[in-house]
Amino acid sequence: MRILVSNDDGIHAPGIRALARSIAGMGEVWMVAPDSERSAVGHAITLSDPIKARRIRVEENVEAFAVGGTPADSVKLAVCALMPEPPDLVLSGINLGPNAGIAVIYSGTVSAATEGTILGIPSIAFSLNTFQDPEWDAAARVARDLAERLIGDPLPAGVLLNVNIPNLPYEMIRGFTSTRMAASRFMETFHKRTDPRGNIYYWMDGFLDPEGDPDGTDLKAVAEGWVSLTPVHFDLTHMPSLPRLQAWHRAGLARPDDV
Amino acid sequence: MRILVSNDDGIHAPGIRALARSIAGMGEVWMVAPDSERSAVGHAITLSDPIKARRIRVEENVEAFAVGGTPADSVKLAVCALMPEPPDLVLSGINLGPNAGIAVIYSGTVSAATEGTILGIPSIAFSLNTFQDPEWDAAARVARDLAERLIGDPLPAGVLLNVNIPNLPYEMIRGFTSTRMAASRFMETFHKRTDPRGNIYYWMDGFLDPEGDPDGTDLKAVAEGWVSLTPVHFDLTHMPSLPRLQAWHRAGLARPDDV
Repeated sequence: MRILVSNDDGIHAPGIRALARSIAGMGEVWMVAPDSERSAVGHAITLSDPIKARRIRVEENVEAFAVGGTPADSVKLAVCALMPEPPDLVLSGINLGPNAGIAVIYSGTVSAATEGTILGIPSIAFSLNTFQDPEWDAAARVARDLAERLIGDPLPAGVLLNVNIPNLPYEMIRGFTSTRMAASRFMETFHKRTDPRGNIYYWMDGFLDPEGDPDGTDLKAVAEGWVSLTPVHFDLTHMPSLPRLQAWHRAGLARPDDV
Repeated sequence: MRILVSNDDGIHAPGIRALARSIAGMGEVWMVAPDSERSAVGHAITLSDPIKARRIRVEENVEAFAVGGTPADSVKLAVCALMPEPPDLVLSGINLGPNAGIAVIYSGTVSAATEGTILGIPSIAFSLNTFQDPEWDAAARVARDLAERLIGDPLPAGVLLNVNIPNLPYEMIRGFTSTRMAASRFMETFHKRTDPRGNIYYWMDGFLDPEGDPDGTDLKAVAEGWVSLTPVHFDLTHMPSLPRLQAWHRAGLARPDDV
């Protein structure tokens, strides 16, 4: 088996190293990831600039490339150019910090797994629900448990697994639970400042506004000590709205003689 | 009424100017957009760097700010910091080039409208199905038709409208039709090069691989001369997979004594 690991915290981040070590026994491991942090890049790709890729040495028996691009670039480049054959599995992470609720759509970690799924490869995104004192070893064991399970019981084509892991010792984790993406959103505030030359700039800040009904969501599950498993797809069509828009069709355009 | 326009081609692009002019009579127009092209940035936001915003003069009676950030940054900043009150409508585009099929998830144009929707504001993304000889006037008239229609007949909360416009004179456009996002994908190829210092780099390239069953898709509709209206939401949960993952829950983690 051949496994590709990527992330958005950069190839030198501890999370991707822990992930690579935990799956070392499962097959041939390739690590292709951004050369530096690319958080909150969403599903960005690099079309107007060249993408550099540098072979580096990270762990025994791991082929590793540092990519001057986004997580999605890294996965595309790995699968389409760097690897002799496509991988059997794409794993992204382990991210320092959760990717749950609306944050999923901004997440570089998830975008790497989305890209794997678009390329037809079973893919998982892993995020650890903390920004400090990460329990990498426990999270990496969970990641391996899930990688093995997904190989044995794959999801439908076009569906990836978005995993949020509580920051607990392995024995304290309550188990897996399937969840939906919470409808919570960030309430942004912007801090306005003036630079020494008189130009105005802003820092984005904010807090998470939890949704009214958190039952069954990724955010609630991971906060309560469960490994949250959210099946994610990227057909963004809101099917229930199709008939309503079809009514606009019948009316046609506002033709000059209608106005 | 107060309308915010943004885009990903940059505030000096002809598409956003045509859009602003066409809606001038509808209300107070604010233009807050990236200071340069930010295509294929996906739903990126700027968290680790400051965001510059410079007030500029573009058209009569338009408040305009050039933002040193992404389309999503621009909309967040406009709504949360620059505008005295939130807008009644967010319009993104008009993009030079389509945003249909899987390209939607890479699209900065769509991300601006997505951000508007997240912020609770009815939002539309407009893209013109050409890369050359754009019929801006026709597209801008279509945009205005749709903006007025959406105001009168809003979509459910959390749903935005992704519009692809055929590049035809207004009278030649066949009408509106509601569509689903095509499942087509890009087949990437990477051109490998070596720079003068011996470093390897790649250019991303590729072609669109049309899906087997194009009926009812955005790609087919716009190619056939219709204005394609796709309702887009961003709850990415693949609901049909939830029960299957719940079965993993019962099995729990691979506890040390199981292994």
